[in-house]
Amino acid sequence: MANFFKDNDDLQFYFERGIDWTRLVELTEHDFRAPDGPGDVKEAVELYRDIANLVGEFVAAEVAPHAAQLDREAVDLVDGEAVHPPRLQAIFDQINEMELNGLCLPRELGGLNAPLMLYYLTSEVIGRADVSVMAHHGFHGGMAAAMLIFSVREGTTKVDPDNGVILETRFQRYIEEIVRGEAWGCMDITEPDAGSDMAKLRCKAEQDEDGNWFVTGQKIFITSGHGKYHFVIARTEQAGDPDDPFAGLGGLSMFLVPAYEERDGERVRLASLDRLEEKLGHHASVTAQLSFERSPAHLIGQRGEGFKYMLTLMNGARLGVGFECIGLCEAAIRLAEGYAAERRSMGKSIDRHEMIADYLDEMRTEVQALRAVCVHGAYHEEVATKIELALRFADMSDTERAQLEREQKMHKRKARRVTPLLKYFGAEKAVEMARRCVQIHGGVGYTKEYGAEKLLRDAMVMPIYEGTSQIQALMAMKDTLGAIMKNPQRFLRRGAQARWRAMSARDPLERRVAKLQATSFQAQQHLITRTATDKMRGLKGVAMTSWPDAFLKNWNPKRDFRFAMLHAERLTKILFDEAAAELLLAQAQAHPERRELLERWLDRAETRARFMLDEIQTTGDRLLSTLDETETAADAAE
Amino acid sequence: MANFFKDNDDLQFYFERGIDWTRLVELTEHDFRAPDGPGDVKEAVELYRDIANLVGEFVAAEVAPHAAQLDREAVDLVDGEAVHPPRLQAIFDQINEMELNGLCLPRELGGLNAPLMLYYLTSEVIGRADVSVMAHHGFHGGMAAAMLIFSVREGTTKVDPDNGVILETRFQRYIEEIVRGEAWGCMDITEPDAGSDMAKLRCKAEQDEDGNWFVTGQKIFITSGHGKYHFVIARTEQAGDPDDPFAGLGGLSMFLVPAYEERDGERVRLASLDRLEEKLGHHASVTAQLSFERSPAHLIGQRGEGFKYMLTLMNGARLGVGFECIGLCEAAIRLAEGYAAERRSMGKSIDRHEMIADYLDEMRTEVQALRAVCVHGAYHEEVATKIELALRFADMSDTERAQLEREQKMHKRKARRVTPLLKYFGAEKAVEMARRCVQIHGGVGYTKEYGAEKLLRDAMVMPIYEGTSQIQALMAMKDTLGAIMKNPQRFLRRGAQARWRAMSARDPLERRVAKLQATSFQAQQHLITRTATDKMRGLKGVAMTSWPDAFLKNWNPKRDFRFAMLHAERLTKILFDEAAAELLLAQAQAHPERRELLERWLDRAETRARFMLDEIQTTGDRLLSTLDETETAADAAE
Ligand SMILES: Cc1cc2nc3c(=O)[nH]c(=O)nc-3n(C[C@H](O)[C@H](O)[C@H](O)COP(=O)(O)OP(=O)(O)OC[C@H]3O[C@@H](n4cnc5c(N)ncnc54)[C@H](O)[C@@H]3O)c2cc1C
Ligand SMILES: Cc1cc2nc3c(=O)[nH]c(=O)nc-3n(C[C@H](O)[C@H](O)[C@H](O)COP(=O)(O)OP(=O)(O)OC[C@H]3O[C@@H](n4cnc5c(N)ncnc54)[C@H](O)[C@@H]3O)c2cc1C
Repeated sequence: MANFFKDNDDLQFYFERGIDWTRLVELTEHDFRAPDGPGDVKEAVELYRDIANLVGEFVAAEVAPHAAQLDREAVDLVDGEAVHPPRLQAIFDQINEMELNGLCLPRELGGLNAPLMLYYLTSEVIGRADVSVMAHHGFHGGMAAAMLIFSVREGTTKVDPDNGVILETRFQRYIEEIVRGEAWGCMDITEPDAGSDMAKLRCKAEQDEDGNWFVTGQKIFITSGHGKYHFVIARTEQAGDPDDPFAGLGGLSMFLVPAYEERDGERVRLASLDRLEEKLGHHASVTAQLSFERSPAHLIGQRGEGFKYMLTLMNGARLGVGFECIGLCEAAIRLAEGYAAERRSMGKSIDRHEMIADYLDEMRTEVQALRAVCVHGAYHEEVATKIELALRFADMSDTERAQLEREQKMHKRKARRVTPLLKYFGAEKAVEMARRCVQIHGGVGYTKEYGAEKLLRDAMVMPIYEGTSQIQALMAMKDTLGAIMKNPQRFLRRGAQARWRAMSARDPLERRVAKLQATSFQAQQHLITRTATDKMRGLKGVAMTSWPDAFLKNWNPKRDFRFAMLHAERLTKILFDEAAAELLLAQAQAHPERRELLERWLDRAETRARFMLDEIQTTGDRLLSTLDETETAADAAE
Repeated sequence: MANFFKDNDDLQFYFERGIDWTRLVELTEHDFRAPDGPGDVKEAVELYRDIANLVGEFVAAEVAPHAAQLDREAVDLVDGEAVHPPRLQAIFDQINEMELNGLCLPRELGGLNAPLMLYYLTSEVIGRADVSVMAHHGFHGGMAAAMLIFSVREGTTKVDPDNGVILETRFQRYIEEIVRGEAWGCMDITEPDAGSDMAKLRCKAEQDEDGNWFVTGQKIFITSGHGKYHFVIARTEQAGDPDDPFAGLGGLSMFLVPAYEERDGERVRLASLDRLEEKLGHHASVTAQLSFERSPAHLIGQRGEGFKYMLTLMNGARLGVGFECIGLCEAAIRLAEGYAAERRSMGKSIDRHEMIADYLDEMRTEVQALRAVCVHGAYHEEVATKIELALRFADMSDTERAQLEREQKMHKRKARRVTPLLKYFGAEKAVEMARRCVQIHGGVGYTKEYGAEKLLRDAMVMPIYEGTSQIQALMAMKDTLGAIMKNPQRFLRRGAQARWRAMSARDPLERRVAKLQATSFQAQQHLITRTATDKMRGLKGVAMTSWPDAFLKNWNPKRDFRFAMLHAERLTKILFDEAAAELLLAQAQAHPERRELLERWLDRAETRARFMLDEIQTTGDRLLSTLDETETAADAAE
C-alpha cells in the first residue's frame, strides 16, 4: 500500500534518528505527569509513528490520486458563502474523522496532544499529495493552537501546575469547535494598500462604552477566509503625526473575530465574504476578500501589541510553508524521476543523460538540505514555545527558572536564525524544482496530462505569501548585520575560527564546511564594512570592535543599509547554504551514512557561495548610483 | 497612439542604425534590377519602417488589449476541424488584410519582398502583444518561404538571371494561397516516441508504381497543425540492422503533405486532425495531433535528405523563437516596470527598492543582450541564404563566385554559432523574466487579473519547443568542441589573443570583454582537456596541436563527451555571455551611447561566467561516477 511517509528514506531518518523526541515529548507531556498520556517517550513515539503512517497512507490513497480534480474544480461563491466541491469536502471530512484537527491540541480540549513536530512532518506528507489541501488543513489545528497560546500569553488560561492540564482557557469553545471539525480559522492581515508594508494597515477597531470592540475595514487575499474564526490585525490607536509611534506598527492590535454565528440554526454573517480570487493554482485553498463593518471582535492581549502577536502567527506559518515546500519539491522530484526513468532518448532513459541526471541529483540533494533546516527550525521553535509555557505555569526554583530562561533564548535564537532562510530557500526551490519537472517532461510537461505544470502553478505562490522572498531576505540580512553590530568581537572571532578550522580540522568535510563558513563570513564582512563606510566616511581606520558606540545611534535603516539591501537576497542564499552545511555536518559526524549527503550538498553549495560572494564584492555600485539619481529626481517631484 | 515598434528605443536603434540594411536590401532586391521594386535602399527602408509602424500600432490596439481573452478562449475541435474563437479569427483576418502573410515573399508571388529581418523584428513586436498569436502567424509566410527555398534547392524553380524574378516554382499555387491568407503550413516532426531523438521517427512514406508518394503515421504536438500544408518528415529507407546508415537520420525524407483539399466546395480530409492539446498556456496557438493514412505527399529533394531540409526549417524556427522570446521579455519587463512604478511599499514605489530595482535593471540589460544576438543571428542567416540563392541563379565570373562562396560560408558560420545560444538564452530568460514579473506583482501576480501569470504560462513552452534547452546546449557544446578539435592551433591562438587584449587594450571595456573571452577559453580548454584525457589516458604530455590525428578517429560521441555533456548547459551560458559581449563591444565602439549598455551587461556576465567556470572546473566527477555505476547496472539488466 502506497505510503507517503514510509516511502521517504530521508524523512524516516529524521523520524527514527534525527529528531530528539525525548526533549519534545517531555515538554509536551509535562514529564509524563499528565493523566491519560503516554507512559514514556517510546510509547509516545510509537503513537506518533502510527499517526504518521496513517496520514501517509491516507494521502497516497485519497488525496494524491485526485490532485488533478482538486485543481480543476474551483470553490464557488454562492449567495455570499463558499461552497466546497464534493471531492474537496470528502477529503476534509476524512481528515476530520482521522481526528487530525486536534493533533497537537491538549487532550483536555479534545486533541491528541502530539508535538507540533509531528504536525510539521505530516505537513510535508500532505503537501506532497496536494499542497493546497495542506494549506487549508493548516488553518484548522494551527489556528486553534494559536488561540490557546495567545490566551496563555495574555493570562486568560489556567493550568494545573502539577500536571500541565488546562483548567480553563479563553477561547475554549472555539478551540473545541475546530477540533471537532466544525470550523476553522484564518489570519487577516493583508489589505489592498498594505501587503509587505504592514505599517500601512488601515482596518480599524473601536470600542463602545461597554468596552466591546468592533472591527471595520477590508481584508484581501485571506487563505481559508471562508472560515469562521478570523485573527484580524487592526488599527486601534490614531497617530497624531507621521512620527508618532502609533503611526506604523505600534498602533496595531490583534483581534479574534467570528465571521458568522449560528442563530436558530441559521448562519448569520458578522463579516461579509465578498469574493474569492481566481488564482494561477493552489485551487483547493480559498483566497478570500472580506469586509468587516463593525464586526464584534475580541481584543487579544493589550492594545498596540498586534504586531507582536502577528509575528507569532507568521513564525508558525513560515515554518509551515517550509514544510509545504518540502512536500511540493518531493512531488516534483518523484514525478520527474519516474518519468525520466521511463522515457527514452538517444539510446537510453533520459535520467541517464548527464544533464538530466545532474538536475535530478541537485533536486534530491536540495530537498534534503531543506528538510534538515526545516526540521531544525521547527524543533527549536517548538522547544522555545513550550519552555515559555512551562516557565509560566510550572513551579520551579529561581536557578531552575534562570537556567530554563537561558535555554529558551538559545532555542528561540536558533529558530529565528533559520526561519527566514528556510522560507526563502524552500519557496524558491519549490518553483525551481517544479519548473525542472516540467522541463524534464519535455512536450508532455506543457500539457495538463502529467501533472507537472500543476506543480509549477501551485509552487508559484510560495515566494509570495507569508512574506515574500524579498521580505525574507531583508529580515535575514537585518538580523545578520544587526547581530554583528551588536557584538563585532563575536563575529570576528567566529570568522577567525572558521578560517582556522578550514585548514586544521581532521575531517576533510569539516574543513570544507569551515571554508564555506569563511566565505559567508567574507560576504558579511563586505556588507557590514560597506554599510559602515557609507554611514561614516573615513571610518575605515577605526577597528571594527569599536564601531558599536560610534554609529549604533542615529541609524536610518532606509538609507544606511542600501548596499546590504541590494545584496540581501545574495546574502540569504549564502546563509542558507551555510546553515544547511552546518546541520548536515553534525548529522554526518553522528551518522556516517549521512556523509555522502553532506558531500553532495557541499558540491552544490561551494561554487554557489563563491558566486554570491563575487557578486557582493564586485557589483552593485553602478545600480545604487543610478538609483540615487532617480531617488533625487523622485524626491524633487514629490 | 500606442505603437509597440516606436516605443522601443533599443529596437529603434537596430532599425535606424544597428542593421546593415544596404547589404540586405541589395541581396533581396537583386541590386535593384527587379521590376516594381524600390529604387534604392533609402526608399526600401522607408517602406519597411512604415510596415513596422503599422504592425506596432496594430498589435498595440488590436492584439495586446485582448490577450486575456485570447488566453481564455480555446480553439475547439468540432467534427474533426478546429474552430477559432471569434477574437482570434478577427485578428488573423486583420493580419491578412494588412498583407503581412506575404511580407517576405517575392512580389511576383503576391508578396512584398521585404527582407526576413523585417519579419523577425515584427515578430518581437507581435510577440510582445501575445506570443501565441505570433507563433500561429509564423506558420503562414514562414512556411511559404520554406516552400520556395526548398524548391530552389531541389532545382524546381526557374529564375530570370537578369533581375531575379521567379518565372516558375514548384509550390507556386500553395504559396499564393498562403499569401492570400487562405491557408497556412506547419512542421510535422514530433511523434510519441521521438521528440528530441529524431533518429527514432517511425512515420513512413511509400511510393506506388507510378512514383506517387504516400505518408502513413502519427504526428503529435504540431503547432498550427490544423492548417493545410504539412512539412512531414518520414522514413523512406528501411534499415537492415542498427548500424545501417539508414537506421537513424539517414533514412528520413521530407514531404509536403496537404492535410485536406476542396472538392466541390467541400473540405475533404487527407490527414485527420485527432486532437488539440490542452496546454498550460500559448492558447492562441493550436497544438495538434494528426494521423496520416496513405496521405498523398510530395517528396522534397532526394530520398534520405529529410534531416537536411529539417535543419533549414529548424534554423529559421529557432531564430523565430528567439524573437518571440524578446517580445515576451519586453512584455514582462514593461508590465513589471509599470506596476513597480505605481505600487508603493515602505515609503516609496517598489521600483526604488534596491532588490526590485536590481531585478528590473537585469531584465532590461538581458533583453538588450538577447536582441543584439538575435539580430546578429538573423542577419547572417539571411545573408547566407540569399547569397546561396544568388549563387544558383545569378551570372557571375568564377572569381566572383569563389569570393561569394567564401562570404556565404562566413555568414553561415556566424549564424550557426549563435543560433543555439539565442534559442537557449531567450527561452530561459523568457521564463525567468515572466517569473520575476509575477513576483514583482506580489499577491496580485498570482491572480488572473494583471496578466503576469499568463506571461509565465506562455513562456514555459519556449525551453521545450523547437529543440529543448538541453538539446540547444548539446549542439552548442558539440559545435564548440568540434571546432577546437578540427583546428586546435586556431583555438590556442585566440585564447592567447584574448589574454593579451585583456591586459593591453586601450579601452577598459575592451579589456573586460577580452577577459570574459579568456574565461570562456578556460572553460572550453577544461572541457576539451577532460574529454581528451578521458578518451586517451596518458595523453597529457602530448601537445594539443597534435591531437587531431591522434584521436579524431574512432570517436564515440555517446561515451567520449560525457564530461562535456554534463557541463553543456554551463558552457552554453558562458558562450552566450561572451557572444553578446563581443557584439555589444562592436556597437559601443561604433556608437558611444551604447557603452553604458555594454557596461551593464559586463556587470552581469562577468560574475556569472566565473561561476560557470568554477562549476566546470570543480564539479561533475562525483556525478559521473554515480552515473557509471547505474550505467553498468542498467547495461547488465538490459
Ligand atoms: C494565494 C495567497 C494567499 C494569501 N494568504 C494570505 C492570508 O492568509 N492572510 C494574509 O493576510 N495575506 C495573505 N496573502 C497576502 C500575501 O501575504 C501578500 O500578497 C504578500 O505579503 C505580499 O504583499 P502584496 O501582495 O501587497 O505585495 P507588495 O507588498 O506590494 O509587494 C510587491 C513586490 O514588491 C516587493 N517588495 C515590497 N516591499 C519591498 C521592500 N521593502 N524591498 C524589496 N522588495 C519589496 C515584494 O517582495 C513583491 O515582490 C495571500 C496571498 C496569496 C497570493
Ligand atoms: C506547444 C508545443 C508546440 C510544439 N510544436 C511542434 C511542431 O510544430 N512541430 C513538431 O514537430 N513538434 C512540436 N513540438 C514538439 C517539441 O518539439 C518536442 O516536445 C520537443 O522536441 C521535445 O521532445 P519530447 O517532448 O519528445 O521530449 P523528450 O525528447 O522526451 O525530452 C524529455 C526531456 O529529456 C531531455 N533530453 C532528451 N534527450 C536528451 C539528451 N540526449 N541529453 C540531455 N537531455 C535530453 C529533454 O531536453 C527534455 O528535458 C511542440 C511541443 C509543444 C509543447
